[in-house]
Amino acid sequence: MSEKRIVVIPGDGIGEEITAAAVCILKKAAGKSGIQLQVERHLAGGAAIDAYGLPLPDSTIQAAKKADAILLGAVGGPKWDGVAPEIRAEKAILGLRKELGLYANLRPIRVAEALIEFSPLKAEAISGVDILLVRELNGGIYYGAKNEAAVVNGVEQASDLEIYSTPEVQRIVNLACKAAQLRRKQVVSVDKANVLASSRLWRKAAQETASQYSDVNLSHLYVDNCAMQLILAPKQFDVIVTNNLFGDILSDEAAVLTGSIGMLPSASLGDGTGLYEPIHGSAPDIAGKGLANPVGTILSAAMLLRYSLGAEAAAEAIEKAVDQVLVQGYRTADLYKPGSTKVSTEEITSLIEKQL
Amino acid sequence: MSEKRIVVIPGDGIGEEITAAAVCILKKAAGKSGIQLQVERHLAGGAAIDAYGLPLPDSTIQAAKKADAILLGAVGGPKWDGVAPEIRAEKAILGLRKELGLYANLRPIRVAEALIEFSPLKAEAISGVDILLVRELNGGIYYGAKNEAAVVNGVEQASDLEIYSTPEVQRIVNLACKAAQLRRKQVVSVDKANVLASSRLWRKAAQETASQYSDVNLSHLYVDNCAMQLILAPKQFDVIVTNNLFGDILSDEAAVLTGSIGMLPSASLGDGTGLYEPIHGSAPDIAGKGLANPVGTILSAAMLLRYSLGAEAAAEAIEKAVDQVLVQGYRTADLYKPGSTKVSTEEITSLIEKQL
Ligand SMILES: CC(C)[C@H](C(=O)O)[C@@H](O)C(=O)O
Ligand SMILES: CC(C)[C@H](C(=O)O)[C@@H](O)C(=O)O
Repeated sequence: MSEKRIVVIPGDGIGEEITAAAVCILKKAAGKSGIQLQVERHLAGGAAIDAYGLPLPDSTIQAAKKADAILLGAVGGPKWDGVAPEIRAEKAILGLRKELGLYANLRPIRVAEALIEFSPLKAEAISGVDILLVRELNGGIYYGAKNEAAVVNGVEQASDLEIYSTPEVQRIVNLACKAAQLRRKQVVSVDKANVLASSRLWRKAAQETASQYSDVNLSHLYVDNCAMQLILAPKQFDVIVTNNLFGDILSDEAAVLTGSIGMLPSASLGDGTGLYEPIHGSAPDIAGKGLANPVGTILSAAMLLRYSLGAEAAAEAIEKAVDQVLVQGYRTADLYKPGSTKVSTEEITSLIEKQL
Repeated sequence: MSEKRIVVIPGDGIGEEITAAAVCILKKAAGKSGIQLQVERHLAGGAAIDAYGLPLPDSTIQAAKKADAILLGAVGGPKWDGVAPEIRAEKAILGLRKELGLYANLRPIRVAEALIEFSPLKAEAISGVDILLVRELNGGIYYGAKNEAAVVNGVEQASDLEIYSTPEVQRIVNLACKAAQLRRKQVVSVDKANVLASSRLWRKAAQETASQYSDVNLSHLYVDNCAMQLILAPKQFDVIVTNNLFGDILSDEAAVLTGSIGMLPSASLGDGTGLYEPIHGSAPDIAGKGLANPVGTILSAAMLLRYSLGAEAAAEAIEKAVDQVLVQGYRTADLYKPGSTKVSTEEITSLIEKQL
């Protein structure tokens, strides 16, 4: 048995119950692959503001850095909307990404056949969609120089710098190309090179980087066109790679095409510890009621096994178990329709556990 | 009879035939409202590159400035993809916006009931959608300081500045609020205030501006959430106001929800001459074949009558005529399905003209 250290950050709202569910599945799947997990809980987001007066305590950062992987629930909620800007819950997310050097956000967009009716798109448009969206997560306008509102020459103005360096682009495009090699080998790089200087650098660096992968086909799309194509013909995409800001918008757009964001996982990777979390929010209105869908977090745990613990078989076992439970017609409240069997957070977790 | 000067810029590809169609409708509708049009043709885009070696000749700019309104087809095409960056066809668009001070891009997103089946969304999700997207068009990252790729401290980097001033935000939010007063009085301002300093200024200025309209209700959405909501529940939106870059992405996303971008018009307004154009591209592959759908350009002509010539009745007459021809089942090739009557660019134009 090898031993691995996992930091769990439940966060706020439904974070507690969905991470509890995922940890249970994670432990079982890891155990079967000969990995014993040592799990440590840490605070971030609103829970940390309440306990320490700041959203990302140093103890959480230190523990995260030493861990083999981090599993996060969701942070924030209306309770903390009024806090000072410097301690807002988002700061926990942005802080973790920067402290851990998490430069790549991986968002698989897949539609379970059993849930196809939940998509706002017509079934024939969405059936079979399987996209991996790779978002640059440590650069661009998120971290470029900011000037908060100030009067300059008599006019109040504010600004943010969108900035990319060639090595930053190479790093993320390399990752996207490697991911594509394990898939359908098509990478679409998204930019706004007809307007932005940073996008022109992005496009050139992406081109040069991808040319080193003779089996990968790279093409380019402007971000406005990509926003259209995702709706018109989502099946055309295999891997999409883009910058931090465009990735924020396009990954959420792509996610809702599936109709069930409660199902979608994500991984944020860097050179050290990886962070795994569902893409949905903390949903404080349903917290503690057994209504939350833990599948996004459970599938994030599968990504954790795959990318941080190298346990591919365990990852696939979880993904298969989830599929089977859905095919059997079990649904949490968010996905319930007459004809299926409504189950609680805990019940669906036990059903998935039994399938493992 | 009053007399008005219209500059027509056919542009490239199908630009010629769709502007010809729209001018014919425009003249007829204007005439019935007692307005005589003096129409002048000018070049821009690829056609201007071929004729003068640059995409926006000074003669076009000068004529545009003196005109009462501009009707544009579409510019660009693969033929000019290889030209030097400084003379690319986009420069014609960006140049006209700046030279004419066109700070507001109005994009109505409406779904003709007769065409609902063309939407990639399920009919119940899209039926009745009626959005006016107002995009700031003269500021932000499009025109902020640019640094093309250069080596700084040994690393190649490039950057663009996203910058907004309070008066720029006030101007566009005032316009959005006034538009909302003529509609359902709901304005959603879209930003990324949890990350960007320029968005925090935007949000504050939007709030202050909208508070002067006691009958208008303003709310705020983050751009990633808006990209989701447009797909999940497009009916919730009345007027959306946002910055140049977010507007570029969201307006195209919203447009494809309707399933027929050949139908959608746009207006770009400033303090002087307004510019009107369909939202689709120049489609060089079908140019000159009578296959192009002129309706987006014809509806742009209706907007021209409304906003630049103050001829509301003429504008509504065109919109009604278009609706009737669609209800009667006439369709250009892009919207043809068995059961409807396929007609050419010219045929649909005469049908609309007859309805007037
Ligand atoms: C909370 C916010 C700062 C964050 C982002 O913009 O990156 C979120 O939208 C996300 O996508 O994880
Ligand atoms: C051609 C391009 C510069 C332009 C833009 O980005 O504004 C286009 O996408 C548009 O929306 O009109």
